[in-house]
Amino acid sequence: MTFSVTVLGSSSALPTSSRFPTAHLLNANERFFLIDCGEGTQIQLRKYQIRFSKINHIFISHLHGDHYFGLFGLISSLSLLGRTNDLNIYSHPELEEILNFQLKYYDLGFNLLFHAIQDKFAGLIYEDKQIMVSTFPLKHRVASNGFVFKEKQKEKNLIKDMIPYYHLGIRDILKIKNGDDFIDQNGNVIPNQRLTHPAKEPRSYAFCSDTAYDPTIIEHINGVNILYHESTFAENLAKRAEETGHSTAKQAAQIAHLAEVKKLLLGHFSARYKDLSIFQQEAKEIFSEVENVIEGHTYKIE
Amino acid sequence: MTFSVTVLGSSSALPTSSRFPTAHLLNANERFFLIDCGEGTQIQLRKYQIRFSKINHIFISHLHGDHYFGLFGLISSLSLLGRTNDLNIYSHPELEEILNFQLKYYDLGFNLLFHAIQDKFAGLIYEDKQIMVSTFPLKHRVASNGFVFKEKQKEKNLIKDMIPYYHLGIRDILKIKNGDDFIDQNGNVIPNQRLTHPAKEPRSYAFCSDTAYDPTIIEHINGVNILYHESTFAENLAKRAEETGHSTAKQAAQIAHLAEVKKLLLGHFSARYKDLSIFQQEAKEIFSEVENVIEGHTYKIE
Repeated sequence: MTFSVTVLGSSSALPTSSRFPTAHLLNANERFFLIDCGEGTQIQLRKYQIRFSKINHIFISHLHGDHYFGLFGLISSLSLLGRTNDLNIYSHPELEEILNFQLKYYDLGFNLLFHAIQDKFAGLIYEDKQIMVSTFPLKHRVASNGFVFKEKQKEKNLIKDMIPYYHLGIRDILKIKNGDDFIDQNGNVIPNQRLTHPAKEPRSYAFCSDTAYDPTIIEHINGVNILYHESTFAENLAKRAEETGHSTAKQAAQIAHLAEVKKLLLGHFSARYKDLSIFQQEAKEIFSEVENVIEGHTYKIE
Repeated sequence: MTFSVTVLGSSSALPTSSRFPTAHLLNANERFFLIDCGEGTQIQLRKYQIRFSKINHIFISHLHGDHYFGLFGLISSLSLLGRTNDLNIYSHPELEEILNFQLKYYDLGFNLLFHAIQDKFAGLIYEDKQIMVSTFPLKHRVASNGFVFKEKQKEKNLIKDMIPYYHLGIRDILKIKNGDDFIDQNGNVIPNQRLTHPAKEPRSYAFCSDTAYDPTIIEHINGVNILYHESTFAENLAKRAEETGHSTAKQAAQIAHLAEVKKLLLGHFSARYKDLSIFQQEAKEIFSEVENVIEGHTYKIE
């Protein structure tokens, strides 16, 4: 199953000539989940040749313009393109009011289903056969939420030769794939690990933006394959980060280290930094598996 | 005096990988007037290295998203950049309501002065020492207005040698520059054209988008140096143009021809056209001085 994230924007509040505001696109088996939708997201989707129509779920972390001002244009374009499928939006309740107001003159042609995330809520907000999405509060100037996208635990892989050897029936197989031991006709217990290969570990992606340094999020993102954590500032502006509810690259690395994630992606770079190498460099002092995001790049989650 | 227009966006409602939605920037002697503000306008301003802070007046033609969805991000960025100067916005009254709603949580740090253009209004909406801006109704699915930016008539140029020859005083000079004849001490009338060179013709720029073909606008744009007229479709989709309140390139050319403008710029191209040469080609059959706009290009008005 494809499980990857494409970064569409990497700037903080002020876009630059080369950096768009925040938007990430998660591809889980060719179903697309948009995370944040800064101004110009639809333009980036066009640029990277991603079909709008594949997006059915949009998650908005918080209501600062650089994380949702692209929503109106995207929704309006989806409508112009003749969309009829429901579009689900997950965010804080104020966004529903904003959308209703902004779109009151539009006849969209599809349902906009709003799923409110209450302040401080942590828990599951979406699941289907293959993945689960949960949310948790971040620490910012306004209510802000992180998201974790995680594959569901797959069944164990039955070793094929065991079927004739133990005369396994369909029901036995389902139970064994689910982790049960097998009891044969003589009452012998065949332990599950003799019958199966373990399932692949479920992969996971966590998105944390915007947020100040906040170790309380670790329980929610522990061990994820890829953690995206905002790093608006380098260490030279650690004080400014604290004042504005943002993080430095080093703080993001510290979170990645404590949460024992596999890989860290940094983004949401302040416009004042032309050369971004300092972010990766400072983070590396604490956590080696780190990259600055590059717009248009797709990161495989594996 | 600099008098030019920079095109920031040339797409119609659906942006493409290479075309942003509508926004034009008029430079009148280093004072900047923004005309329409589609999504991504601030990104284009950055790209073409135009300082946001120079914009004090924004004119919005109509309330379809591709002409104003960039306003929220631009205003928010102006605020983040520490703006304190008033920002003037000229548009239909509904936009004031939208802006108030959208910005109610923002402490901008500057005044947003809204100047409502009532439905069907035609007349002057702005003037200063150097230029005048007037508006007039277009023909679209919602209230839509065009704008004409025109230099003020300059004073005539006094021929320097005439000052000692006729012993002209300051008051005489001011009157003569204003067009008066001069009466010398013997009562002889010296005609103005003997004393002066004519002033340069005031230059003008007209912006007409979005609109169906509408010859009633000709009186407002007659003889302008540059006419920007939307041409969403080529002739193959003339019927679609009519249905949607848009124009074809040929219709734009017909307006340019009837209004005897000096030069026609075409834009607001539908996303379905990859190759835009058909627009210029079809328009040329009727009006030779025509160009398709190119994003980032600055057109001198002369």
